[in-house]
Amino acid sequence: MLTLYDYLDSGNGYKCRLILALLNIPYTRIDLDLDKGETRTPDFLARNPNGRIPALELDDGPGSTVVLPESNAILYYLADGSPYLPTDRLARAQVMQWLFFEQYSHEPYVATPRWIIRHLGRTHPRMAELPERLEKGRAAFAVMEQHLAKADFFVANRYSIADIALYAYTHRAHEGDHDLTPYPALRRWLERVATQPGHIKMLPTD
Amino acid sequence: MLTLYDYLDSGNGYKCRLILALLNIPYTRIDLDLDKGETRTPDFLARNPNGRIPALELDDGPGSTVVLPESNAILYYLADGSPYLPTDRLARAQVMQWLFFEQYSHEPYVATPRWIIRHLGRTHPRMAELPERLEKGRAAFAVMEQHLAKADFFVANRYSIADIALYAYTHRAHEGDHDLTPYPALRRWLERVATQPGHIKMLPTD
Repeated sequence: MLTLYDYLDSGNGYKCRLILALLNIPYTRIDLDLDKGETRTPDFLARNPNGRIPALELDDGPGSTVVLPESNAILYYLADGSPYLPTDRLARAQVMQWLFFEQYSHEPYVATPRWIIRHLGRTHPRMAELPERLEKGRAAFAVMEQHLAKADFFVANRYSIADIALYAYTHRAHEGDHDLTPYPALRRWLERVATQPGHIKMLPTD
Repeated sequence: MLTLYDYLDSGNGYKCRLILALLNIPYTRIDLDLDKGETRTPDFLARNPNGRIPALELDDGPGSTVVLPESNAILYYLADGSPYLPTDRLARAQVMQWLFFEQYSHEPYVATPRWIIRHLGRTHPRMAELPERLEKGRAAFAVMEQHLAKADFFVANRYSIADIALYAYTHRAHEGDHDLTPYPALRRWLERVATQPGHIKMLPTD
């Protein structure tokens, strides 16, 4: 049985929950409260020295477990051999392209403003980071919009973990003071992802 | 023939040059000067809308080319089917783990301080970012040190693109005011990578 170390309000955690639901894979979910520092305890740091969720604990032979961190590496592992990760060499590399785009050019500018507002609060000094982060987030949305104006999905014209990775925080971008109105193709893609068979929402309150 | 859009002083570009050399793959290199904004021209943005190097242009059927950006996606594409990317499912996911660690938890704190010092200069206002970036860089080195104290390489005990990705900026970390003295296992690993058969250096002046 797989164990997912997770936090409900994390889009990175949601990526893993979504692919696990789509693939109908049973797992145990352990919730660690980031606001209370539960990813920095000695017990969790022994599992993931980088002290972040999500992390997937899986069997690695008799009596041995291994912990795989990094949301997009978990997506890759779980989707390998499924329709959500293409087998064609170039298409796989293009999935990687968008996964790295998400972590480097998107997540810090879409997820972090949301985190600051929801978890630190609008009076926190880190609110000063928002203008620059929002500007770079808009640059990421513009790249996505340009691509989605010509394609229904990010790679090989079908739903893959590239879409899942980018959907996770894009569909919550408004909670980080982003406005998606200028990106119609991107908004149609959000709706397209949300209506895929087997889709689950991120939060029980959604 | 492959074309690599590159910049000599970029560690991300060097990752691609290194795997191309190790695999003995011929390619044309086009140098774009980041300091002169040559990655933001209409011509280059038509190739990579995200406006970053490295980007690999490759054949995609008769008369058609495709541009693959993101250094770690390029590493993945080039190494696929070679000894530098394991075939085992978990080992491949662990390669991904370290590639995402590199882009999210390492590059902004190791490459960016170096960039600020070398390309903006020590009197630039962005020097104010250094203390926080260096602190997070030390956290990344500590994670690497803990791993390398027990293993010669990052994945499956052999040289892979996970090592190449992490080597690129770690071996220049001192140029970003980092001090690697406290990380003996990491320093031994740097030496181990530099002495692999077929290794090339990053700059002609090295």
